[in-house]
Amino acid sequence: MEKIAVGVIGATGMIGQNYIKLLDSHPWFEVSYVAASPSSANKRYEDAVAGRWHMETPIPERARDLVVGDANLISQAKDKCRLVFSAVEMDKASVKELELGYAANGFAVVSNNSAHRHTDDVPMIIPEINPDHLDIIASQREKRGWDSGLIAVKSNCSIQSYMAPLYALLKAGYGIRKMILTTLQAVSGAGYPGPASIDLIDNIVPFIGGEEEKSEIEPLKILGRIENGVIVNDVSIAISAHCNRVPVIHGHTACVSLEFDGKKPELDEIAAIWRDFSGVPQELDLPFAPKQPIIVREEKDRPQPRKDRDLDKAMAVSVGRLRKCNVFDIRFAALHHNTVRGAAGGAILTAELLKARNYI
Amino acid sequence: MEKIAVGVIGATGMIGQNYIKLLDSHPWFEVSYVAASPSSANKRYEDAVAGRWHMETPIPERARDLVVGDANLISQAKDKCRLVFSAVEMDKASVKELELGYAANGFAVVSNNSAHRHTDDVPMIIPEINPDHLDIIASQREKRGWDSGLIAVKSNCSIQSYMAPLYALLKAGYGIRKMILTTLQAVSGAGYPGPASIDLIDNIVPFIGGEEEKSEIEPLKILGRIENGVIVNDVSIAISAHCNRVPVIHGHTACVSLEFDGKKPELDEIAAIWRDFSGVPQELDLPFAPKQPIIVREEKDRPQPRKDRDLDKAMAVSVGRLRKCNVFDIRFAALHHNTVRGAAGGAILTAELLKARNYI
Amino acid sequence: MEKIAVGVIGATGMIGQNYIKLLDSHPWFEVSYVAASPSSANKRYEDAVAGRWHMETPIPERARDLVVGDANLISQAKDKCRLVFSAVEMDKASVKELELGYAANGFAVVSNNSAHRHTDDVPMIIPEINPDHLDIIASQREKRGWDSGLIAVKSNCSIQSYMAPLYALLKAGYGIRKMILTTLQAVSGAGYPGPASIDLIDNIVPFIGGEEEKSEIEPLKILGRIENGVIVNDVSIAISAHCNRVPVIHGHTACVSLEFDGKKPELDEIAAIWRDFSGVPQELDLPFAPKQPIIVREEKDRPQPRKDRDLDKAMAVSVGRLRKCNVFDIRFAALHHNTVRGAAGGAILTAELLKARNYI
Amino acid sequence: MEKIAVGVIGATGMIGQNYIKLLDSHPWFEVSYVAASPSSANKRYEDAVAGRWHMETPIPERARDLVVGDANLISQAKDKCRLVFSAVEMDKASVKELELGYAANGFAVVSNNSAHRHTDDVPMIIPEINPDHLDIIASQREKRGWDSGLIAVKSNCSIQSYMAPLYALLKAGYGIRKMILTTLQAVSGAGYPGPASIDLIDNIVPFIGGEEEKSEIEPLKILGRIENGVIVNDVSIAISAHCNRVPVIHGHTACVSLEFDGKKPELDEIAAIWRDFSGVPQELDLPFAPKQPIIVREEKDRPQPRKDRDLDKAMAVSVGRLRKCNVFDIRFAALHHNTVRGAAGGAILTAELLKARNYI
Repeated sequence: MEKIAVGVIGATGMIGQNYIKLLDSHPWFEVSYVAASPSSANKRYEDAVAGRWHMETPIPERARDLVVGDANLISQAKDKCRLVFSAVEMDKASVKELELGYAANGFAVVSNNSAHRHTDDVPMIIPEINPDHLDIIASQREKRGWDSGLIAVKSNCSIQSYMAPLYALLKAGYGIRKMILTTLQAVSGAGYPGPASIDLIDNIVPFIGGEEEKSEIEPLKILGRIENGVIVNDVSIAISAHCNRVPVIHGHTACVSLEFDGKKPELDEIAAIWRDFSGVPQELDLPFAPKQPIIVREEKDRPQPRKDRDLDKAMAVSVGRLRKCNVFDIRFAALHHNTVRGAAGGAILTAELLKARNYI
Repeated sequence: MEKIAVGVIGATGMIGQNYIKLLDSHPWFEVSYVAASPSSANKRYEDAVAGRWHMETPIPERARDLVVGDANLISQAKDKCRLVFSAVEMDKASVKELELGYAANGFAVVSNNSAHRHTDDVPMIIPEINPDHLDIIASQREKRGWDSGLIAVKSNCSIQSYMAPLYALLKAGYGIRKMILTTLQAVSGAGYPGPASIDLIDNIVPFIGGEEEKSEIEPLKILGRIENGVIVNDVSIAISAHCNRVPVIHGHTACVSLEFDGKKPELDEIAAIWRDFSGVPQELDLPFAPKQPIIVREEKDRPQPRKDRDLDKAMAVSVGRLRKCNVFDIRFAALHHNTVRGAAGGAILTAELLKARNYI
Repeated sequence: MEKIAVGVIGATGMIGQNYIKLLDSHPWFEVSYVAASPSSANKRYEDAVAGRWHMETPIPERARDLVVGDANLISQAKDKCRLVFSAVEMDKASVKELELGYAANGFAVVSNNSAHRHTDDVPMIIPEINPDHLDIIASQREKRGWDSGLIAVKSNCSIQSYMAPLYALLKAGYGIRKMILTTLQAVSGAGYPGPASIDLIDNIVPFIGGEEEKSEIEPLKILGRIENGVIVNDVSIAISAHCNRVPVIHGHTACVSLEFDGKKPELDEIAAIWRDFSGVPQELDLPFAPKQPIIVREEKDRPQPRKDRDLDKAMAVSVGRLRKCNVFDIRFAALHHNTVRGAAGGAILTAELLKARNYI
Repeated sequence: MEKIAVGVIGATGMIGQNYIKLLDSHPWFEVSYVAASPSSANKRYEDAVAGRWHMETPIPERARDLVVGDANLISQAKDKCRLVFSAVEMDKASVKELELGYAANGFAVVSNNSAHRHTDDVPMIIPEINPDHLDIIASQREKRGWDSGLIAVKSNCSIQSYMAPLYALLKAGYGIRKMILTTLQAVSGAGYPGPASIDLIDNIVPFIGGEEEKSEIEPLKILGRIENGVIVNDVSIAISAHCNRVPVIHGHTACVSLEFDGKKPELDEIAAIWRDFSGVPQELDLPFAPKQPIIVREEKDRPQPRKDRDLDKAMAVSVGRLRKCNVFDIRFAALHHNTVRGAAGGAILTAELLKARNYI
């Protein structure tokens, strides 16, 4: 199979760098175009990120010599790629317009940005949960007059650790009414430079701007249904989130208490549901799909970010400490790698799904 | 006023060291006796803690030359002090017996240990909340045949940040039905050595042995009432706790969601209730009493352990991020200094209350 | 004694905030004026630093209501204070001009900025070491036509931990030929925000811009002599520095190897020289002077930043691990609090010396 | 090629776990035997390390079901393996005897323990530096009456980052007279649990027991020569080390100042020597050999532990900040992964060399 040429828009930022790193030697995709702000344009990629390459592995050989394009000049991407991963960091309105522009010009856009998360014909995909939301792309293209273009987005990183466990229970037939959760989030989620050392040595910060709102709203869209060409969020799960920043490099942990709606499974049934959970990415054996999307830990003190975040290509969610809740029904701790499963890796898996379903 | 001679039993451990530090130049109490395990006995205190003094300030001058007694030999404490702070670290049964022995020998025992927390005639005191639980000492003495002896204990450190906010609301007439909370606890709460660096660099641990159980049960006793010489825990607040260890030296943070029982105050009324909250220690102007037991922070990202733990002699609780909860009624973050307010400092305040009420 | 009115120029930055904190209830000085960039001008100080007050203690009451002036408008400081502490953060040329402007307008300027450190008639003072360099102020005033104005500066924070130990040996008659040292420096030395968390969690950075050069050159001026109205740096000690940033909040540690020039003292003599070292600030009993400028630790693993930085108002230097060097003569570890002794506290001590010697 | 059966003695400790992890899917070796203290004996390996597996990756499938032997009963290893990696943690005398016992029974022993580092007929190998020290095995066997048995050891982890750079210069013909260095060492070097969190949050510790002595003595043996069946350490390089513990998980950094003996190369020549440096492991293309043993970083702020420790299977040393020294000739920073290159990985490379040279 010939590899599909892909571009990374916003390639010099931290999420962009993650794409460059994760796409290196991808079996289906090949990064053939990188773009960034005008100040980086026309430089070799290696030069453009000199002194600010933040990955733990060196810049992939292939990417070093790519000449950086101007992300705002969509025409520069023409003939260079068919799909772009958008990791741009601009104001929301500009991102919206830019991503629409790429799609209108025939590009499949898979975005990490939050700008289009609540555009009602744009699917917000977690491939194991709502792969069929891609069906809305037909309406999207029709309504907007696009032929091959499309936009799909990923959700906020903070929710990824508990969305799969939550969905697995729903899929098994257990309704969920209420969820109160507290996150302990890693600094890489804030991009570069992110929180200052002086604020996170011997300290935690009990606030992350906008994160709690996203944690409470985005799950509803992901669990929503398509009706008349838009995604309807009429799921009635009440969610309340407390989001904290902690001195961890990668890996968001969530402490979750959950109340069922109707019948209540036993703890060992829940563990079995999670262990057995599998979705379309597993069925299709997509390259970035973890074998087991949810890993259930039996140890009393797991999951832990540094020890569990990298499991199964950093694409698996780890769940542990499943026990009865004194107030709701159950409680547990969940963990995922925020810059892989929760960001670039999740978006790559979505792109693989798009490819498998012939959208690109 | 002549100072009251006090002893510290378990003086060489971390909590014991905190007593030695905090009692230095106390206006009412003077450490005239220290005791520890037989291996430390007969050494000068300075020598006994050589290489394991963990406080940030030097060993107080006065304490250096005290000769360490054997904590098991109660007779050694005779004539040296009238009150002992118990910071012993032994198995529960031994602690129980030892503390009973000191009390039977006429000593007032104020303990940090959990052994007697659920002995039904032993008060578990947070001086701003349940000072009147000291009334049970009359029954305690009568039943056990003690004349001047007594035992009072402090609660677990994990609950101190939200107990005062909780109680202030109850006192203002607002019933509370449910509370779900997640703690981010400092390493000093685990004593020395506590968690290994390799487990808390770039990591958090979502488990602290026994801590969740204590967090769920102890509040009920503190809010209980005396009936027929025992403390009855018939308060019906359901509490569910998730306890995490984070890389912070001192200061336990709690993220709390709370549901009222009956009428629900507005957010600004709650803030006012907390700001205005005051108890017996403030009324009596006890030396270790913070002027304002609850400090309400308006900044969007406070309280934070390193920045707020030391407020008002590290005896004030800081509360912030008060906002509506999507699932319950309100949510907020609370913080206290676990080794001062939550341990030695809280016990010293209890001792001051005992003195002010003429129990010693 | 009536307090001397002082101003803090650059009062909203991190060093400026340190001045505001440390000068609170100073027995001689009273902050009666604060100035900052035009964007902060005309705000109450409390409002100007809202959301970026980085001290561990609250903003002092007195400072909250001070109206912030524009640091560039020297006339605004007139009649408000006689001495200004300069903590401005601008390009070097602008600082130079601004500080000259204040001095020309009659203000005593004590500066943390590096701009004038190598101006040959400006003394760079460590009060225990070169108090007599203040004598150059006469020439400074004469040459520049100033009446009451003056400029004195402090050195870079990185060198403060070993300068006093070094000088004590010189003063005792032991020449020093060579010194190789490695620093492990705290993040507060970099101002706010300083290093990103993501660069200092599970990491150290073996580079601090400009720090090694300053560490190698500034000691020579401090140890220099006045000749013909300028300070001559003809001391011939060769110094080589490796400067590292480590995840510590406050406290710079230096590992020093040192070769004597000529006779070589025994280790116990050196310890005695350091313990007995005392300077003009101690003689004059200045408010910020530590009783013992150099504290010698006997424990095998001290000094340590978190445990020793606060000794004696955070103005004492701690030295430990004195032992033979396999290559030079001796080696040791030294520590000081970089934002107190090494920055604002050191400058306040210099101002006290200026006052004691009637320069203000 | 059929794989060689190897054993890991001391397999449940942290270094032992590293062997189990690193040897998983090794092309030449297969772990067929594990042994530990009597308390772990007869358990499945997975059970023996339950709750104390400290690697970031799961226990390799193959190792889980191995039954742990008693390390003291050498007969249990018979017929199970030909080579044992010794990672035992006992008193020095016991280790010495035990390792001699294994060798006497025909096993090739490659040890991480320091017990035999200064036994004069035991080679201390860094495969890129002194592979020919293996020649002493002939005398070792003859003198001790062993047929197939042998002992080879690795050096202390602290010295690995600068030994290759040092040796590369010697090999290029530049003599070295003096070296003063300061290390910033990771906590994993101390085994488990190692330093307490409370000692390394917002702190560094300027002392590691025994480490400075090892850093100063071991290089001399590694650079020594074989004469009359013993290794003679008559190299005359004076080394002085300051060893510090810093809050880093893996990766020891060294700041080195170095004086040449005789002619002095230019900086760019030194960089070229390091870049071009290659040894026997590279020549033989051993599985664990890094392609480039010394990686020279040009960035001003590298190497850094978290970013560079994993380069080339964590077996390469990274060197940066090469510059003139004000006191000696040059200075630089060097880094290596202490538990891979500096411990288990280095020993595996030595075992590969033993195999390639037909000692096993």
